[in-house]
Amino acid sequence: MIDPKAEIEITGYRWVPAFAQGHVRDLRPRWACEEAGLPYRERLINVQDKPAGFGDEQPWSQVPVMRDGSLRIWESGATLLHLGEKSAKLLPTEGQARANAISWLFSAFNTIEPLMFEFTNVTAFARGEEWAKLRRPSLEEFIRKRLAPLETRLSSQDWLDGAFTVADIAMVTVLRAMGDSKLLGEHKAVSAYVERGIARPAFRQAMADQFAAFERHPDNAA
Amino acid sequence: MIDPKAEIEITGYRWVPAFAQGHVRDLRPRWACEEAGLPYRERLINVQDKPAGFGDEQPWSQVPVMRDGSLRIWESGATLLHLGEKSAKLLPTEGQARANAISWLFSAFNTIEPLMFEFTNVTAFARGEEWAKLRRPSLEEFIRKRLAPLETRLSSQDWLDGAFTVADIAMVTVLRAMGDSKLLGEHKAVSAYVERGIARPAFRQAMADQFAAFERHPDNAA
Repeated sequence: MIDPKAEIEITGYRWVPAFAQGHVRDLRPRWACEEAGLPYRERLINVQDKPAGFGDEQPWSQVPVMRDGSLRIWESGATLLHLGEKSAKLLPTEGQARANAISWLFSAFNTIEPLMFEFTNVTAFARGEEWAKLRRPSLEEFIRKRLAPLETRLSSQDWLDGAFTVADIAMVTVLRAMGDSKLLGEHKAVSAYVERGIARPAFRQAMADQFAAFERHPDNAA
Repeated sequence: MIDPKAEIEITGYRWVPAFAQGHVRDLRPRWACEEAGLPYRERLINVQDKPAGFGDEQPWSQVPVMRDGSLRIWESGATLLHLGEKSAKLLPTEGQARANAISWLFSAFNTIEPLMFEFTNVTAFARGEEWAKLRRPSLEEFIRKRLAPLETRLSSQDWLDGAFTVADIAMVTVLRAMGDSKLLGEHKAVSAYVERGIARPAFRQAMADQFAAFERHPDNAA
């Protein structure tokens, strides 16, 4: 829930081009806050003219940056972990369930998302380039190998490990990069998992709030 | 320090081909244990014939897998975070210093390492392929953009943020993927940072211990 007086502040963009809408990574901490019932306030910056000194807040001048009282956290993984520490709805407080959730969180960001970055390069940003056409088959083959254990696992369970956690917020948003591709479609259980994730009311609220900002600032109007 | 009776167990490989020696990711938790003075025992498995059920320990049957008493942790990032929780030598216990270290930890694994994976593909694994030759210039250009803030930062400080932390273990090992490339050489401060990291006695001990296993099992001899 967005509340201008909340302790937690999430920095996002007031507007981005259509292809990025719904994919800006402030979606992740927004979703986590909604799941946990943690109110947050928005700070919306101009993607084309970032605030002076924003590089001191985030080394690559990217979003999200999150504040919680006087603390500043960046990298969507770090924001998810921080929010996880605040709510057992997001992260089990102890034992193997907690270790699994944190391990899966890093799996999403370090084992799966690097491949998604390249998939997006090859199928979208660099789509017209010769290297992208030549690269695509071997990349897709490697992605299939990485998705296979997820496909098996998610054939018999709804979430990565028992109850829904921040690792699922990470993994679902990471896997969404495949959009409605044939590659995702081949993996019925992974595909159903993504659908289950994005059907959650907290995800839908987070998306609605990211889009609401863009709608208030069409084509980046102030 | 390796101690067969230690509570912490790190799974690595008894041997790997020369190109991978010194780069297997169990190096990261080994290094962290050495920095913190946490004893650990080794469990060395056969990379060409992994133990039955290893996929249940690590979804992609990779190392490291770490155990701490009855807990199992995987993904090198998760092992670093877990070890960080055990020692203030690895992770500040509170405040902005802790938030910074965790944010930088995710930066290493999600902002920098994905590019290193592709750099290794382009310059080594897929070196002879046409797509790799065509891809290299744009990839290097993007890597330069990502290294620029690190270059600035590390021009005036030894570590990412004040004292050495697990984030430095992550970032140094991630950046090492550039080897002695011209790309790394262009970045004098980043290059000096990597050198500072790998000159630490704890890193050298971790490397020596990884290599000692390989030397005990030449060409994967039992």
